[in-house]
Amino acid sequence: MRTNTFAKGMRGKNTHRRNDNALPAKKPHDVIPPLAPETIRVVPLGGVEEIGRNMTAIEYGDDIVVVDCGIQFTDSDSPGVDYILPNVRYLEERKGRIRALVITHGHLDHIGGIPYLIERLGNPPIYTREFGALLIKKRQEEFPHLAPLDIHIVDAEDKSIPLTPNLKVRFFGLTHSIPDSTGIIIETPFGDIVNTGDVRVDNENGVPSEKEVEQYKMFKDRNVLLFTMDSTGIEKPGFSPSENHILKNIDQIVGTAPGRVIIATFASQVERIIEFFLIAKKYGKKVVIEGRSMRNNVDIIKHLGLVDVSHVIPVDEIEKHAPNKIVMIATGAQGEEFAALMRMANKTHKFVKLNRTDTVILSSSIIPGNEKSVGKLKDNLYRHDAKIITYLDSDVHTSGHGKRGELEWVHKQIPYKFFMPVHGYHYMLKQHAELARALGTPAENIMVPDNGSIIEIQDKGTKIVRLREKAPSEDMVVEGFTVGDVSDVLIRDRKMLAEDGMFVIIAMVNTKTGRLKKSPDIISRGFIYLRESQELLNEARAIIRKSIENTAVGMNPINFDYVKNAVNEDVSRFLFQKTNKKPIVIPVILSV
Amino acid sequence: MRTNTFAKGMRGKNTHRRNDNALPAKKPHDVIPPLAPETIRVVPLGGVEEIGRNMTAIEYGDDIVVVDCGIQFTDSDSPGVDYILPNVRYLEERKGRIRALVITHGHLDHIGGIPYLIERLGNPPIYTREFGALLIKKRQEEFPHLAPLDIHIVDAEDKSIPLTPNLKVRFFGLTHSIPDSTGIIIETPFGDIVNTGDVRVDNENGVPSEKEVEQYKMFKDRNVLLFTMDSTGIEKPGFSPSENHILKNIDQIVGTAPGRVIIATFASQVERIIEFFLIAKKYGKKVVIEGRSMRNNVDIIKHLGLVDVSHVIPVDEIEKHAPNKIVMIATGAQGEEFAALMRMANKTHKFVKLNRTDTVILSSSIIPGNEKSVGKLKDNLYRHDAKIITYLDSDVHTSGHGKRGELEWVHKQIPYKFFMPVHGYHYMLKQHAELARALGTPAENIMVPDNGSIIEIQDKGTKIVRLREKAPSEDMVVEGFTVGDVSDVLIRDRKMLAEDGMFVIIAMVNTKTGRLKKSPDIISRGFIYLRESQELLNEARAIIRKSIENTAVGMNPINFDYVKNAVNEDVSRFLFQKTNKKPIVIPVILSV
Repeated sequence: MRTNTFAKGMRGKNTHRRNDNALPAKKPHDVIPPLAPETIRVVPLGGVEEIGRNMTAIEYGDDIVVVDCGIQFTDSDSPGVDYILPNVRYLEERKGRIRALVITHGHLDHIGGIPYLIERLGNPPIYTREFGALLIKKRQEEFPHLAPLDIHIVDAEDKSIPLTPNLKVRFFGLTHSIPDSTGIIIETPFGDIVNTGDVRVDNENGVPSEKEVEQYKMFKDRNVLLFTMDSTGIEKPGFSPSENHILKNIDQIVGTAPGRVIIATFASQVERIIEFFLIAKKYGKKVVIEGRSMRNNVDIIKHLGLVDVSHVIPVDEIEKHAPNKIVMIATGAQGEEFAALMRMANKTHKFVKLNRTDTVILSSSIIPGNEKSVGKLKDNLYRHDAKIITYLDSDVHTSGHGKRGELEWVHKQIPYKFFMPVHGYHYMLKQHAELARALGTPAENIMVPDNGSIIEIQDKGTKIVRLREKAPSEDMVVEGFTVGDVSDVLIRDRKMLAEDGMFVIIAMVNTKTGRLKKSPDIISRGFIYLRESQELLNEARAIIRKSIENTAVGMNPINFDYVKNAVNEDVSRFLFQKTNKKPIVIPVILSV
Repeated sequence: MRTNTFAKGMRGKNTHRRNDNALPAKKPHDVIPPLAPETIRVVPLGGVEEIGRNMTAIEYGDDIVVVDCGIQFTDSDSPGVDYILPNVRYLEERKGRIRALVITHGHLDHIGGIPYLIERLGNPPIYTREFGALLIKKRQEEFPHLAPLDIHIVDAEDKSIPLTPNLKVRFFGLTHSIPDSTGIIIETPFGDIVNTGDVRVDNENGVPSEKEVEQYKMFKDRNVLLFTMDSTGIEKPGFSPSENHILKNIDQIVGTAPGRVIIATFASQVERIIEFFLIAKKYGKKVVIEGRSMRNNVDIIKHLGLVDVSHVIPVDEIEKHAPNKIVMIATGAQGEEFAALMRMANKTHKFVKLNRTDTVILSSSIIPGNEKSVGKLKDNLYRHDAKIITYLDSDVHTSGHGKRGELEWVHKQIPYKFFMPVHGYHYMLKQHAELARALGTPAENIMVPDNGSIIEIQDKGTKIVRLREKAPSEDMVVEGFTVGDVSDVLIRDRKMLAEDGMFVIIAMVNTKTGRLKKSPDIISRGFIYLRESQELLNEARAIIRKSIENTAVGMNPINFDYVKNAVNEDVSRFLFQKTNKKPIVIPVILSV
């Protein structure tokens, strides 16, 4: 007996009819010209065509400084992908010249790429404020195989740190939603490159606070060559409600609640969480922390002594205290499936059963894409008699990203020459560029980049241009343990499998006669509900037999590729006619 | 030679390790008590745990009247499903008693279920206003195999139509966003059951228009037993901007535009589209209609003579007119992949290339879930120099669903006894119930239903109760040509395939020795990028061989199920350890 499998899977070419494992076509690698003297190059590698994966390279002479190294969270557009990373190939090819990675603040869209990318960057020293440093270290614990990081904690704001003879870095304080948020100034021979990181402006009814005015005073006498700024909030007019106003509302709710108060917010809202501890203390209430990321951040708060946390109790002691003596701070305001609040809402929480004296505060907005899961959370919460308070009922949340009025105010504090909007989708950057023009910046001094755009400030800081060439900018992704290019074919197959499933045919053909040895077998997943489809399957088997025998009988030797093509086409057409669906059809034809 | 395939696919039990085709567990069918005399039963079958698939049955004596028959659009939560339908099993079991299907208006969430469900309801007569009738007929053309519909066009508002001796129906005009939108009154011996359908209140700065006041005057002297109302807009405080205000803004934009004006909106915004024709006429501009659903609705507008459409020109004549003489009305404001506006934005439209004198108006809000695709649309639009105007820049859209202030005003116009919020997620219904309580309705007179809740108004209209029993309420879905139960297992498989793909193993075992005839074959889709994973595949083959031979050698006869389980477990574990991913592993073991 001779067995001859023509479905070699990944080993042979034969099964690649759909070309399922082909590399996505890469653009020819641009030959990027070397950096000319007296020219500063700025290359945004991520964060300028999306929200997330922020990373920008600044290059002068023989030196490169990188600002931030973030991840982007994924959605149903990229099934199976865990995170999207900036493409760092430009930097990998120049890693010997990277002098520093400088971090604006400790959120994942600014630090989350470090474990995946730091080796590719040649393990440069990392400059960060302390809170960011602790978050970076905490995260690095999950990657024990990596070399230790070379972290330099920067604690003074009032002096520049020389990274190279020609490039210094200086941090400046600004307002966001996590302690030690900073903007970064890269001092070059031709002036400052200023990067705000994420920024909002604390204000009362549109009047920035004293502290904000103070923070930006330093720019009065500086020579700002290029200003780059967060564009996330550009679409929203005016000023955000002040954090003080939010905290007053929450203080009032906590002070008057008849029973437990459960506050759900992002673990990343560290500054607000610190205030919750103070509010609970004021009313003599205990604090319960629920959710892993929340506990992690509270550990750091405690480690740094940022607030008295002596009134924290473990969740299993919650029953030992009167309900109106409990404030719980929990994750899950985005409807995350297994987060603390969702478990309370769907009655699977081990220690907390919601009741009518409970007050639940959703101190967060809905992140675009999470509308559905937040809806489910609210549905489940409203099945209880607890009182639910969201930002629609009362101001219990304000964003860490300034609205248009705040952005405009910051622009006015910084006398810059060139402007480059960053952090946002392309349309947000364009809207931010329009704002800069409206404020008087000439169009030729504004540059809206794409990921991988190579922007140069040439002729000793006198003009800004975009090179025709681009740095590689295809998505890089984290998937399971793998970091690499995203395969468009893989994603396309996943989407097809999700919509229409698969239909594998296994048929044994007698090579001498070209006839089937027996009725073919079919394996299917995700296609249709088969128990009710016996007739369809019987018809499919008849079509498979006919398709194979029509081509194979009398063919000598049998061209199995040809036979498989025929089966694939006939079966796909039949299934589509019968069901209006297009499963991935995979014929496996074994010769016996 | 004996061939013995143990992967029988759908024919045998052997391949059903994952139980992939098992019916989802059904709740035992509640025995629903018969309807008592002098009792009115109201059964919301859809639309009270979601936005969409609106349908409610009203039952008295031996008669059932059904209001609306809608579909719900799907999202990534139900891959492969086209639409979700109300579960009509309760009605199928009582179809001999259905006297009428009454339609509030012609939107798909109120009429879209008709082609899929009308036969199951026993083809009852359909009562609808004319615009709805035309939309129902238009849609029915796509289902030529169905029996003709028995449509009764209702054109008078001022009289009741007797459906049975005890039940009459009466339509009343109200404001939504499509012509002939109505509310419905079912007159029973104990009072009226009022269903608003979808409703907003036209107003200027919170003062309802004259017309609105008129429309609701009829309720002054009516005996409204049960009021049921749209809850979609409950979360938004205040009143919407008036449609007049929107139209004034758009009029001003059209009047002053330097070139073409492209207005993208929902085809379902028929009333606004009618106004666009008037505005274009006023400025002596031609109108181009783009998008199939838009053209369908304009055909109906034309058929009914609702507005002069003599200035419509076909898109291929667009170049014959000066750009500032063109108004284009197009679909695609939600970023639908192949809709007209998206094709213009991504430069694949055959006749329209956007340029800097064009003005694009997005006259729509973002439907929750479409944020991502609208973002892509805007990114593509902003790659052009055209001027883009969205509802964030100027009031160019207002919703067809009233905000909380509007709902409150309608409540005050209708002196009802019992209240049941409908049309919305559970939390919206709860919030709407809170509003009714705040307006003075006693808690015991308010009923928040679920899909399938059996609500009875007992004792001659004196009390409202919810039965312990429920009508069947599992989702019914449209998928390709199939209408039926959704298979949870199918959906789960699709989600698994989307995340982690599949991994099919084909191995031939010598039944005498228990050894492999040759190295096993592997077919995979959607799992990992295999060309870079040769080592992983070689290891996997070694594990498959070891797993099979460890169990099969010396076993006589070979228990192939046992062998397959072993292979599945060993390979799944190996792949997870190596990749952190869990593809669906399917071992096909052939004995030779």
